[in-house]
Amino acid sequence: MPHEYETNGAAIYEESFRTIRAEADLNRFDVDEEPVVVRMIHAAGLVGLERDVAFSDGMATVARAALKGGAPILCDAFMVAEGITRKRLPADNAVICTLRDAEVPEMAARMGNTRSAAALELWRPHLEGALVAIGNAPTALFHLLNMLEDPACPRPAAIIGCPVGFVGAAESKDALMQDLPCPAMIVRGRLGGSAITVAAVNALASRAE
Amino acid sequence: MPHEYETNGAAIYEESFRTIRAEADLNRFDVDEEPVVVRMIHAAGLVGLERDVAFSDGMATVARAALKGGAPILCDAFMVAEGITRKRLPADNAVICTLRDAEVPEMAARMGNTRSAAALELWRPHLEGALVAIGNAPTALFHLLNMLEDPACPRPAAIIGCPVGFVGAAESKDALMQDLPCPAMIVRGRLGGSAITVAAVNALASRAE
Repeated sequence: MPHEYETNGAAIYEESFRTIRAEADLNRFDVDEEPVVVRMIHAAGLVGLERDVAFSDGMATVARAALKGGAPILCDAFMVAEGITRKRLPADNAVICTLRDAEVPEMAARMGNTRSAAALELWRPHLEGALVAIGNAPTALFHLLNMLEDPACPRPAAIIGCPVGFVGAAESKDALMQDLPCPAMIVRGRLGGSAITVAAVNALASRAE
Repeated sequence: MPHEYETNGAAIYEESFRTIRAEADLNRFDVDEEPVVVRMIHAAGLVGLERDVAFSDGMATVARAALKGGAPILCDAFMVAEGITRKRLPADNAVICTLRDAEVPEMAARMGNTRSAAALELWRPHLEGALVAIGNAPTALFHLLNMLEDPACPRPAAIIGCPVGFVGAAESKDALMQDLPCPAMIVRGRLGGSAITVAAVNALASRAE
């Protein structure tokens, strides 16, 4: 016997988001933040994630406005770039990942850092007013913070800081919220990753659910 | 002051995997399974995930052999296809995602199903002996199980069933382990997603850590 299941994509989204809103504690988030957290929980399949999400004041509002104004989206990993739903973007925004640019391996060797960190040096021409989406490498987030210690470095509009893992992830996200070189959002601790990061970008890009 | 952090990629992997092996309960997994579960925990940043991982007997062994033998890898989502590390693949294996093939929207409308499910109809010429990696859509996994109820449908070598979310994810994975049309592996419940699925493929493709 064939399996019976919900086959209507819109109905699946609606029921998913209703379940998340029934189960998760979302009271502390404002109207610009709440749909972002809901979509992040959806991508992770994990109610409770909301407890670890932190926005600096106004980050979600600033990020939404930046995207409407045409801000490029700078991604540390191709999985992040791949997941961003282009038709949700309000201004046909550029989605940029420099990780495989030809000069990156040599730059990484010269810098004594990872390719993920070295690739961010190639963001400089795009960084002013951009939305940064770091969903993989703690070294990328740490290197960005060090780049932004130079007042001459262009400022992004906002940073989504969601690197994942066991070495440097928690520390790099805490450092982001302490330095706060621009409005920022993180998932505290080890959790993070490309799917959660993509969900945040997609929710900031459009209010459509 | 610039932030100080570990910048050596190999050292980061080593410390990450050591931490996971110290914290997670991996005793019930065999030598073909254990590195898969470690890499999945790494991708999710989530010790405890191991409790929800289930392999059918021999799945990891069969999947490793299939990849060595040149099996294509069939992915339900481009984020999954994107994340697979090509240089880990033992036989320059094809990585296939049919989600954006031109005929998919019309097929989905005709079938009354999602594009993720409809796209699997285009897997038929590649399905025999393939490694299936479903890391996004429960509808894709359900549709695959229904396709495989037909004895004339080609059999994959093994299925990684890790769709994520709140509608059909848990149910589709339970159905996979009950039907067991071929060796299979799942993360029970709501957890899953592209990063975890990619981690499983990358671990089955190579023992390198």
